[in-house]
Amino acid sequence: MKLIQRLGINTLFFSKKDKRLAASIKVMMGSRPFNIALYKLALTPSGIAEETMKGFKISNERLEFLGDAILGAVIAEYLFQKYPYRDEGFLTETRSKLVNRESLNSTGIKIGLKNVLNLEIGDRNFIGNKSLYGDVLEAFLGAIYLDKGYHFTKKFILKRILLHFDLEGMIATVTNYKSKIIEWSQKENKSIEYKVLHVHGNQRFKEFIVALEIDGEETSQGKGSTKKKAEQEASKNACDLLKITQ
Amino acid sequence: MKLIQRLGINTLFFSKKDKRLAASIKVMMGSRPFNIALYKLALTPSGIAEETMKGFKISNERLEFLGDAILGAVIAEYLFQKYPYRDEGFLTETRSKLVNRESLNSTGIKIGLKNVLNLEIGDRNFIGNKSLYGDVLEAFLGAIYLDKGYHFTKKFILKRILLHFDLEGMIATVTNYKSKIIEWSQKENKSIEYKVLHVHGNQRFKEFIVALEIDGEETSQGKGSTKKKAEQEASKNACDLLKITQ
Repeated sequence: MKLIQRLGINTLFFSKKDKRLAASIKVMMGSRPFNIALYKLALTPSGIAEETMKGFKISNERLEFLGDAILGAVIAEYLFQKYPYRDEGFLTETRSKLVNRESLNSTGIKIGLKNVLNLEIGDRNFIGNKSLYGDVLEAFLGAIYLDKGYHFTKKFILKRILLHFDLEGMIATVTNYKSKIIEWSQKENKSIEYKVLHVHGNQRFKEFIVALEIDGEETSQGKGSTKKKAEQEASKNACDLLKITQ
Repeated sequence: MKLIQRLGINTLFFSKKDKRLAASIKVMMGSRPFNIALYKLALTPSGIAEETMKGFKISNERLEFLGDAILGAVIAEYLFQKYPYRDEGFLTETRSKLVNRESLNSTGIKIGLKNVLNLEIGDRNFIGNKSLYGDVLEAFLGAIYLDKGYHFTKKFILKRILLHFDLEGMIATVTNYKSKIIEWSQKENKSIEYKVLHVHGNQRFKEFIVALEIDGEETSQGKGSTKKKAEQEASKNACDLLKITQ
């Protein structure tokens, strides 16, 4: 089977449309796809998926789940290696900034998914589905993983996806939750106060627990190895709770 | 370097303690560790980590971040292959049920991390750190990944970790958020009501948006392809918001 795929014999049995699709995927991926059915599935957003019996829809959502996990692992290793002196909080936050709907969407368009998608399903209307290309990109990564394995997918992500992400720019925009809360409180005319509730530990290892009070009522808590970190976490929790986004 | 590692020549330079550690890791992992320093780092919980200059602590937390991502990817593929007819909602929920602190903790103890940890850092007191073994397990997976690569780690997870998870049992306990909310409302003496706000779409593809009102006030919303799913999501969001856990 491997030999047949390597010699490209399987493409002899592709339909004309599939051959065209395989060719454009090759341009995008840098390598000929083996199992074209996987890529076709990845290019099937749930909005246009056919419903089979028992209400089960064959769409790219399952592949998206897989691709999302693989992307997460590859980015985790990349950041781990790239920033040897940053702690896991930084790594986690940077990853979630990198792998968000918006950046995946624009990257999907940049690497040419729009054209491939047009080729496969025509120029249908997808108004309302804002994360179409990001979803398709993740599903596409899932398809590559199943078709070509982990190492190929990792190389593909590192060489063709990551360069579209503005890593340094994203890291520079550190979210300062405390200043968000202060801004919000001034706009909403509320008083805020941070109170240290506990300090655990010894000289070597400390843990602060801080409560954030809004108008005298405790809204959230946070903990961290410094007072500043604990305040940040409490502020972040309050932002989540109160749905403060900007 | 590879040859030296394969012949085990590098172990000649291990200290006596390291040799003992390498031997017990071999029992657990089924293969000799190459880079013992990685495993030693994985066995360094942040509570006992030495602080180096500039307040940077060398602990297993970074490895934990990496191991968590690798574990997520492997479990994602496993579930994807095992349940070809389940949708991504099921896959996502099953994974988060599998990979929780509790199950990782007990698995960490079962595969023998307690003994290895005792060997490395002695019988120190870790009261208060409830997720110690789960954290160490994830860090350990990160170390295996860096030491042995993706395929070895995947095999290790599938053969030595997954069998400790009660997969079928976890799937059977589907969390019914709506019944949770109803139970809570009876206990707290509140009235609840589900209201369909919108129905988008056509005959083939529908989307319901449902609001959950508690005592006449809208608390949360949910959407889904059926009214039932939308109600579940609204209930889940309300549970998160109101911190209803049992």
